Amino acid sequence: MIAVIKKGTSDKQLENLTSWLRAQGLDIHLSRGSTHTIVGLVGDTSKIDAELLESLEIVESVKRISEPFKSANRKFHPDDTVINVGNTSVGGDIFAIIAGPCSVESEEQVLSIAHSVKAAGATMLRGGAFKPRTSPYDFQGLKADGIDYLIKAKKETGLPIVTEIMNANHLELFEDVDVIQVGARNMQNFELLKELGRTKKTILLKRGLANTLKELLMSAEYIMAGGNENIILCERGIRTFDTYTRNTLDLSAVPMLKELSHLPVVVDPSHATGLSRLVKPMALAATAAGAHGLMIEVHNDPKHALCDGAQSLTPEAFADVCASVKRVLDVI
Amino acid sequence: MIAVIKKGTSDKQLENLTSWLRAQGLDIHLSRGSTHTIVGLVGDTSKIDAELLESLEIVESVKRISEPFKSANRKFHPDDTVINVGNTSVGGDIFAIIAGPCSVESEEQVLSIAHSVKAAGATMLRGGAFKPRTSPYDFQGLKADGIDYLIKAKKETGLPIVTEIMNANHLELFEDVDVIQVGARNMQNFELLKELGRTKKTILLKRGLANTLKELLMSAEYIMAGGNENIILCERGIRTFDTYTRNTLDLSAVPMLKELSHLPVVVDPSHATGLSRLVKPMALAATAAGAHGLMIEVHNDPKHALCDGAQSLTPEAFADVCASVKRVLDVI
Amino acid sequence: MIAVIKKGTSDKQLENLTSWLRAQGLDIHLSRGSTHTIVGLVGDTSKIDAELLESLEIVESVKRISEPFKSANRKFHPDDTVINVGNTSVGGDIFAIIAGPCSVESEEQVLSIAHSVKAAGATMLRGGAFKPRTSPYDFQGLKADGIDYLIKAKKETGLPIVTEIMNANHLELFEDVDVIQVGARNMQNFELLKELGRTKKTILLKRGLANTLKELLMSAEYIMAGGNENIILCERGIRTFDTYTRNTLDLSAVPMLKELSHLPVVVDPSHATGLSRLVKPMALAATAAGAHGLMIEVHNDPKHALCDGAQSLTPEAFADVCASVKRVLDVI
Amino acid sequence: MIAVIKKGTSDKQLENLTSWLRAQGLDIHLSRGSTHTIVGLVGDTSKIDAELLESLEIVESVKRISEPFKSANRKFHPDDTVINVGNTSVGGDIFAIIAGPCSVESEEQVLSIAHSVKAAGATMLRGGAFKPRTSPYDFQGLKADGIDYLIKAKKETGLPIVTEIMNANHLELFEDVDVIQVGARNMQNFELLKELGRTKKTILLKRGLANTLKELLMSAEYIMAGGNENIILCERGIRTFDTYTRNTLDLSAVPMLKELSHLPVVVDPSHATGLSRLVKPMALAATAAGAHGLMIEVHNDPKHALCDGAQSLTPEAFADVCASVKRVLDVI
Repeated sequence: MIAVIKKGTSDKQLENLTSWLRAQGLDIHLSRGSTHTIVGLVGDTSKIDAELLESLEIVESVKRISEPFKSANRKFHPDDTVINVGNTSVGGDIFAIIAGPCSVESEEQVLSIAHSVKAAGATMLRGGAFKPRTSPYDFQGLKADGIDYLIKAKKETGLPIVTEIMNANHLELFEDVDVIQVGARNMQNFELLKELGRTKKTILLKRGLANTLKELLMSAEYIMAGGNENIILCERGIRTFDTYTRNTLDLSAVPMLKELSHLPVVVDPSHATGLSRLVKPMALAATAAGAHGLMIEVHNDPKHALCDGAQSLTPEAFADVCASVKRVLDVI
Repeated sequence: MIAVIKKGTSDKQLENLTSWLRAQGLDIHLSRGSTHTIVGLVGDTSKIDAELLESLEIVESVKRISEPFKSANRKFHPDDTVINVGNTSVGGDIFAIIAGPCSVESEEQVLSIAHSVKAAGATMLRGGAFKPRTSPYDFQGLKADGIDYLIKAKKETGLPIVTEIMNANHLELFEDVDVIQVGARNMQNFELLKELGRTKKTILLKRGLANTLKELLMSAEYIMAGGNENIILCERGIRTFDTYTRNTLDLSAVPMLKELSHLPVVVDPSHATGLSRLVKPMALAATAAGAHGLMIEVHNDPKHALCDGAQSLTPEAFADVCASVKRVLDVI
Repeated sequence: MIAVIKKGTSDKQLENLTSWLRAQGLDIHLSRGSTHTIVGLVGDTSKIDAELLESLEIVESVKRISEPFKSANRKFHPDDTVINVGNTSVGGDIFAIIAGPCSVESEEQVLSIAHSVKAAGATMLRGGAFKPRTSPYDFQGLKADGIDYLIKAKKETGLPIVTEIMNANHLELFEDVDVIQVGARNMQNFELLKELGRTKKTILLKRGLANTLKELLMSAEYIMAGGNENIILCERGIRTFDTYTRNTLDLSAVPMLKELSHLPVVVDPSHATGLSRLVKPMALAATAAGAHGLMIEVHNDPKHALCDGAQSLTPEAFADVCASVKRVLDVI
Repeated sequence: MIAVIKKGTSDKQLENLTSWLRAQGLDIHLSRGSTHTIVGLVGDTSKIDAELLESLEIVESVKRISEPFKSANRKFHPDDTVINVGNTSVGGDIFAIIAGPCSVESEEQVLSIAHSVKAAGATMLRGGAFKPRTSPYDFQGLKADGIDYLIKAKKETGLPIVTEIMNANHLELFEDVDVIQVGARNMQNFELLKELGRTKKTILLKRGLANTLKELLMSAEYIMAGGNENIILCERGIRTFDTYTRNTLDLSAVPMLKELSHLPVVVDPSHATGLSRLVKPMALAATAAGAHGLMIEVHNDPKHALCDGAQSLTPEAFADVCASVKRVLDVI
């Protein structure tokens, strides 16, 4: 961390600052120039509050050199993390394809889709039991029943299941869930993240709709600080000014996250675009960009889906996407 | 709600759609043009899922005419809502000035600041006991102790208190809190909103960092749908591409929210800018724009504040802001 | 186009509006509901000013159904446009790879890079002679000399050349240039677009840093309205809140633009990310998303490039990207 | 400027870098830490290309300490700039109120509005003769005739006139124009800025729709670098994700620009919001935030204006805004 000191600061003021910083266990490197003096802080600066430092009268600006995330940081953990999930894994040699309906609507629906997506090449089954909806009047999910239907589908197909949590008080319902999803709107629900850090469950953490990559990694850090290192990062589109697609899928996040962190990175092209006809090109693009997997909405009857039908593929269209993804994987 | 039907749709298909819509209790108005047919849906369309409708094969696009919020909507509640809070109120003739430290740090600190801000003209005391921080390694607040100190300050000064909740499980700690704040990161934590809807507490709901005014009002709707109509909306800056200020304070939200809704609207210029020297001009601007009140960070020792010192005013600077705000109020 | 009429509008007012609209050559379809009356405008609404209509006292809101672009619109021109450029083409069977230095720095530099990129598989040579720089103190390009060096490189290698114009007064210098680039900052320099519409030159039109796809197509429309239909659209990243990459490459723009328009779409992964190490993954992703070509910065000595060295590939790295792109093309 | 050097860099490599930097006239301050070495560059770093430096193999990151703008920088010009315009001035004791129609439509219209706005308190007359429109099919302005009508209005009323330029080739038409406006879409039309730098005309420079304050000041720097220091900065709203207002008016830009630069800052609440009913609250807010003036659209018949009628005030409403603005000015 570097603090740039204002011109006109007295030696006494500077000494006060540096002894205060040394008292916090940091080494100090001073560099005096004619217009600016620069204080270099060396040591564990992750606990220094940069905004506080910047607010001091003699400080012009503060720049962090090290990233504030540690457990999620590739610098301290050079090898890719591979997470075992049921009979498969994420982050290693197997390309993860997580597929299923936006919402669980009935036992029949989930079983039917689960068989279809398994046949097409999915490695995991997804489905929403608790649904975050912008309007309180929209369908909120089947809740506990929805999770039961997913577990039945897992028993029948062997596919590990992924479903979203919205309230830490529901955690006991997730005992047989393989991967717990944290949705974009809860990415900075720090109380929920802390609770998930106390479990050993694999967490699929979606990027918030206006969150930076650094904030995504700091949210992963919340979970990891509690002792749970089983985290899958998920890019699902960010909010921008354009309105042709629901969100703007930020695929440069894939190579950037892989550089910054050792955690696996998957991409959700369904929510990102909100349009089923864009799922295939964006799934292929995400694969070519180096993602560790995809998360794709599939519905046996997209036109009558209770939510987000506009972005769901039919099982046939999904099988076509899987086949194309495999061809791209073979050449990169 | 209007659905534009694709060219080439058969009469049979159109009839199927309109009878399905009529079955949901809506009146249908058909307008056939040479290039497009338009279906107007009249009635309570708040329960119609526009995305589902848009996903139908024969539908080209869907446009909502009515706003999807009802309880928060000024159309159905033309008079301004005035909320009584302790010995004062928000939304009526009294301009609310909510002031205090970002974080509660000690009993002495809160008492000292409470007396100062009361003397300067504050109508309520704020202070964070539970703090949402981007990093798990940053100070997370004094929690229950922090609330205790606020309650002591309330007893000494008579100022109603405002403090943030992050977890519905903490609700019993908030029994003597007058206004419960929902922070920007929890604006779409729908589970928390539902719980708060079951209380009768006044809720100060902050706009999320990338949320539209419609989404803010839908989040208010979540609380109101549960039966709690005591909601104060708070504009606190949105995330944009510029980095000189921490957020971009969207003051046009003030007159726009007052037009769309009957709920009171306050502005937080401290978090919006992140810079103490911008608090005064933006507080005056918010007042001139028609806000019902302000929320301002004040610290007796901003340079040593445990969080967000950069945006806190000294008690003297705060007194100057209050005096200027009153002069602006007198002329508008 | 649909206008929603306010409740309480008199028959007389409505008749005034509809006769005014009919006088502009439009057919009118009225749909009266209990809460709203809807006026459907059928005919050539591209000349109707939606904002003016919306400002009328009796109008609640106006929605466009048709896109306001015509010449660029796929609806009126279903087949892909293929543009012949020198000995190659863009938009058809040949995947365009446009490569070269950000800035032309010397004759030797351009010739050396031109030979390298041709050997690696480039179909066109790019190089900046006039450079738009944020600071007036930064290098502004070699101007006329730069274009001369590009023309020499074209003679030696046969590669058609692409270079940016910043001022219509420079047009005569571009006589032997094959493709004239309009940069992101000039995408809405309508005077320049109109001048280019009077030429028959192929124009590579880059998306502005905060422009919607509709605005990009309207800028293409400016050129096409003048009679020049040789336009290549280029996605090069948009401005968002994240700062890890210089811009956010919006790859969903590729399939979306191909759906909306018949014009070819290329992607510039170099400017989009500003980081050479992200060029390969994003080039592959753009290819997989269905782009008609790529525009890539290559420099023989990226560390000493006069501008944008950070995003340039070495000729070796570029050859590797070309080989990988071809493998992806083979399977999609 | 500070360059952070990567761990593992050899002394030899570091020496190469520092001697190269010294050769460019900079003093070098080295600070070696256990994990990072920091190179401080002291001297005129405005000509150093930070991106080039960052691209060097041994450099981890580069941070600018000084702002890259000089002529526009308050540090080198502490006093406010006051610009004389006709019989009035901008930036000093007189609060500038620039009012008039979006587009000049006829001689009668301009004369009528000019007399109205003068009576209400306007200090300058605005009106568009060359209009930048997103669509080539929309009204493009009366051009030379429009300027003639403005000049007649100036002769009749004494009000200095402000009108937009879109093409440097039109400059001779602007001889009797007092203030030449550069619109948001041309803020980075560097060729136009350079031409305007060669004149002595007062330039009203509008912030681009997605440009940072730094970019706005760098564009002012382009004009100033040519010798023309008569520049008025104008905040007119930026593009964000919300759609209730056309743009998001960034009023914190007012105090921030006044801190960074000595140039006067005015605010355009009409274009910012696109809604006439928001003009008054935002005009008052801009005044309270410390703006040096306002730019407001007034039309004698807003419902029939050829462009942007939705955001124009009637002369009566404008007179009310002026009176309220004066009351706010009196108390701040």
